[in-house]
Amino acid sequence: MPRFALLIEYDGAPFAGWQAQADQPSVQGAIEAALARLDLGFKAGARIAAAGRTDAGVHATGQVAHADLTRDWDPFRLSEALNWHLKPAPVAILAAARVGDDFHARFSAHERRYLFRLIARRAPVTHDRGKVWQVLNPLNADAMRAGAAHLIGRHDFTTFRSTMCQSPSPVKTLDEITIEERDIPQGREYRFSLRARSFLHNQVRSIVGTLERVGAGSWPPERVAEALQARDRAACGPVCSPQGLYLTGVGYPHDPFAG
Amino acid sequence: MPRFALLIEYDGAPFAGWQAQADQPSVQGAIEAALARLDLGFKAGARIAAAGRTDAGVHATGQVAHADLTRDWDPFRLSEALNWHLKPAPVAILAAARVGDDFHARFSAHERRYLFRLIARRAPVTHDRGKVWQVLNPLNADAMRAGAAHLIGRHDFTTFRSTMCQSPSPVKTLDEITIEERDIPQGREYRFSLRARSFLHNQVRSIVGTLERVGAGSWPPERVAEALQARDRAACGPVCSPQGLYLTGVGYPHDPFAG
Repeated sequence: MPRFALLIEYDGAPFAGWQAQADQPSVQGAIEAALARLDLGFKAGARIAAAGRTDAGVHATGQVAHADLTRDWDPFRLSEALNWHLKPAPVAILAAARVGDDFHARFSAHERRYLFRLIARRAPVTHDRGKVWQVLNPLNADAMRAGAAHLIGRHDFTTFRSTMCQSPSPVKTLDEITIEERDIPQGREYRFSLRARSFLHNQVRSIVGTLERVGAGSWPPERVAEALQARDRAACGPVCSPQGLYLTGVGYPHDPFAG
Repeated sequence: MPRFALLIEYDGAPFAGWQAQADQPSVQGAIEAALARLDLGFKAGARIAAAGRTDAGVHATGQVAHADLTRDWDPFRLSEALNWHLKPAPVAILAAARVGDDFHARFSAHERRYLFRLIARRAPVTHDRGKVWQVLNPLNADAMRAGAAHLIGRHDFTTFRSTMCQSPSPVKTLDEITIEERDIPQGREYRFSLRARSFLHNQVRSIVGTLERVGAGSWPPERVAEALQARDRAACGPVCSPQGLYLTGVGYPHDPFAG
């Protein structure tokens, strides 16, 4: 069966997350239903696999999944047909590519990139409702950068993972955290970009929630290092809301969508 | 009665436009209802006046209105109370300021700034649904800039105004059109920024719709000059959808929200 990689964008708001669950709307379920409508052989309980199983409310601009289909589709026609059948769900297939049987969206990936959007202002959010996490007061970005620096590299991230995390090891290598600031009307936006081979469950939200405490002045930056060294979930700052989180890209040894 | 200027942001999607109309949701109506709840003297059919009466579906990040209230509110408390009473409408009071009786949100304004967001890509829009106008194929921004250059300055804009426009004269001075490009996942966004003392009804959407024809290669840039000179509504390109349009700012001799 020919295997296809799909590059996927979605608004996570109406979904209980990526993963298909009984009686709950999921991004995976929406795409599988669309696939079943256009590739009849796909039907019998076939599943697609994704690079990142995003939580409820989390968005994507660069999720990657793979599917084994029964027809050897032209990739462009496949993406167009899928987008047709996905309407009106806020899920878009940005690209499709024919890949070899050794390509696995999750296991072949060597890098995940996430963006977290945090807005600081008094007035409520209108245009970006459900797309950002809001706090009321401006933050000190340099203090957050100093706190974030303690997390770069290979560490035991027990403090920064959900107690529900199913990863066999809490040791991960965080390659990058950058924090970009921009003015918005009567406020300020902070964009956190994180990059790693893989992340633990709730790791990005635990890190951003902790850095917000640093930016607000409640935590000195060094307390991030102490929290990391504690290897204790209780040492983490508040986990922030999923609405601000975006899976922006997945890296593979050979980009299936290039060229 | 003390007069207050309000700096207002809104998502235009759920509204039939700025202007209050019987039995239709309007931004003006939402703000007047919130004012009536907190300033009892405001009630008896009092109206607020805005710098730009945006159409149905048009958004704002920097609308300005003024209201005459019966209490001499602290401006910060006024904006906080209004935001409380505006929930859950996607309307936010970004700032309030006490102004003199000679300040009029519409007649004192000497500049309006609009942004139009146009997205070109095959896959449907997810995160920015209702916030942009979408076309399928990439556009030539330099050709659009060459077309736009013909519109700068003082002209009879009959071609580029709605036949419903109530302005006594079609002659306006367009001070600036800039077109900024940016990559988006598997596509391209074009941001048109327009600046003038005032605009005619549908002028921005008529101009952007016409420039899109130039960017798509259907019109040579010089045809924009011919269309302008024709002073004939029939010479205009297609008027584009309101969803991509944002009133981003209003200029006054003395910025009521400064300092």
